[in-house]
Amino acid sequence: MPLSTIPANAFTVTREIRFSDSDPAGIVFYAEFFRMFNDLFEDWLVKRLGVDFAHQFEVEQRMFPLVHVDVDFREARRMGQKMEMSLILNKLGRSSINYEIICHDDGLEILQARFVTCVASKKTMATIEIPADIRARMEEYMSACGR
Amino acid sequence: MPLSTIPANAFTVTREIRFSDSDPAGIVFYAEFFRMFNDLFEDWLVKRLGVDFAHQFEVEQRMFPLVHVDVDFREARRMGQKMEMSLILNKLGRSSINYEIICHDDGLEILQARFVTCVASKKTMATIEIPADIRARMEEYMSACGR
Amino acid sequence: MPLSTIPANAFTVTREIRFSDSDPAGIVFYAEFFRMFNDLFEDWLVKRLGVDFAHQFEVEQRMFPLVHVDVDFREARRMGQKMEMSLILNKLGRSSINYEIICHDDGLEILQARFVTCVASKKTMATIEIPADIRARMEEYMSACGR
Amino acid sequence: MPLSTIPANAFTVTREIRFSDSDPAGIVFYAEFFRMFNDLFEDWLVKRLGVDFAHQFEVEQRMFPLVHVDVDFREARRMGQKMEMSLILNKLGRSSINYEIICHDDGLEILQARFVTCVASKKTMATIEIPADIRARMEEYMSACGR
Repeated sequence: MPLSTIPANAFTVTREIRFSDSDPAGIVFYAEFFRMFNDLFEDWLVKRLGVDFAHQFEVEQRMFPLVHVDVDFREARRMGQKMEMSLILNKLGRSSINYEIICHDDGLEILQARFVTCVASKKTMATIEIPADIRARMEEYMSACGR
Repeated sequence: MPLSTIPANAFTVTREIRFSDSDPAGIVFYAEFFRMFNDLFEDWLVKRLGVDFAHQFEVEQRMFPLVHVDVDFREARRMGQKMEMSLILNKLGRSSINYEIICHDDGLEILQARFVTCVASKKTMATIEIPADIRARMEEYMSACGR
Repeated sequence: MPLSTIPANAFTVTREIRFSDSDPAGIVFYAEFFRMFNDLFEDWLVKRLGVDFAHQFEVEQRMFPLVHVDVDFREARRMGQKMEMSLILNKLGRSSINYEIICHDDGLEILQARFVTCVASKKTMATIEIPADIRARMEEYMSACGR
Repeated sequence: MPLSTIPANAFTVTREIRFSDSDPAGIVFYAEFFRMFNDLFEDWLVKRLGVDFAHQFEVEQRMFPLVHVDVDFREARRMGQKMEMSLILNKLGRSSINYEIICHDDGLEILQARFVTCVASKKTMATIEIPADIRARMEEYMSACGR
């Protein structure tokens, strides 16, 4: 399977696969991938967009619940290996954030995942508009990635 | 959202939501749902179909890797609540097992997830045919559920 | 190693060992034991003592942080096996709860763990006195266990 | 509480605290600390001592089970904070490795943990001697840390 096209400016981190990620077959336990996805989304907000995630959550009382995810798992990853994880932002709605995460290593596509996350009030649990300053940073990211 | 139709004979377990499942918002951390899905699939094999999962893995050297999953999250679940998890088997391919998991509580649909799992050799990591005795039990389950 | 003495009335639950608990050696990943310990403590409060843990946390704003733990791991547990987990309450201080968890199976001691948990205010993070009604239920438990 | 003395050459990594590490109180769920401990031990072997952990496990069939751990938790860590994790090697037995992990941040001691890990055969599950080349690297580490 040829690797999906990943924009040169996409936020990409390297993740080593450790013992604690691995199942009895010695490969990443699939539920652990979802934890990695969540960590990548948080790191993207904090390290790439400059959004203080803990502040959003604890002070602004905003949360980012997942509404939909679908994943195609193509290759396993073993303990001792590594992979690159790239986040591609595709579309913003009123409250919704549509993005993909592609995990890859040296031209090999490991998995492709599509997400719809929304912004919600921690108090009411209802969706709210993406705050203007966060939307601006996200639009800048899309633009930097040629979307 | 009306609850999806769940066959009366579907394998259903009750899962309490504990502190250890919960995130800083006090609701199930979404990656934990995937762990619960895996536990439900294993329990279905062991407790409903009578397939010895550990034996399959350790002696028969067969594993059940996930190829595709997609999930619609509709409602959050808080620590102290519970939910029912039902497994619905939809189709068997040569190697692939297509099923859904619906989480619900008292008529409320919490999430709906669709899976494609396959049977693979632990040694070669390649897909293999669903073993005949397991296929027979799965077909019987589909039939009992009116599929 | 002979099994430690477990009071007949001790709160004991059976825990099956699943794929998701297991590490690449096919045995329980040791960090997972600590999650099981936390689940057992919560179940003991809820199911044996009748303390509504979620209510304590969310309404009363009380939490039960761990101050000290030490564990002797004696035997591994494999996927497909089970074990019994027993909670023995040894001593109550002003804020502190001293207890042991012994995991065992058919006379075999799997591990022995000793805990000091305290009661704390969620707002100030400072320790507080064990609430009188909870203390009374804990003393009754100790007494039922001959402590 | 004054910070324990940490040798200048001790293996130390910085760990950010993320949403996925955190419990409903917004602080690290204590079972997650044990996962972090395991990751630190693995990273120490791989990155500091140059021992290929995956190779040890998969090819040499050696594992490093935990025999004893005890931990004093002194301070909580919140989502959005970070901490330093330092590994101090204290003593080597025939098969056993005695070490401490101290988590700290800017002079504040967060926790102190003491471990006895041994080397074991994956096939027999019995303890084996620490392999000579690994022992030599560990002794060099102790010496570099003034132990």
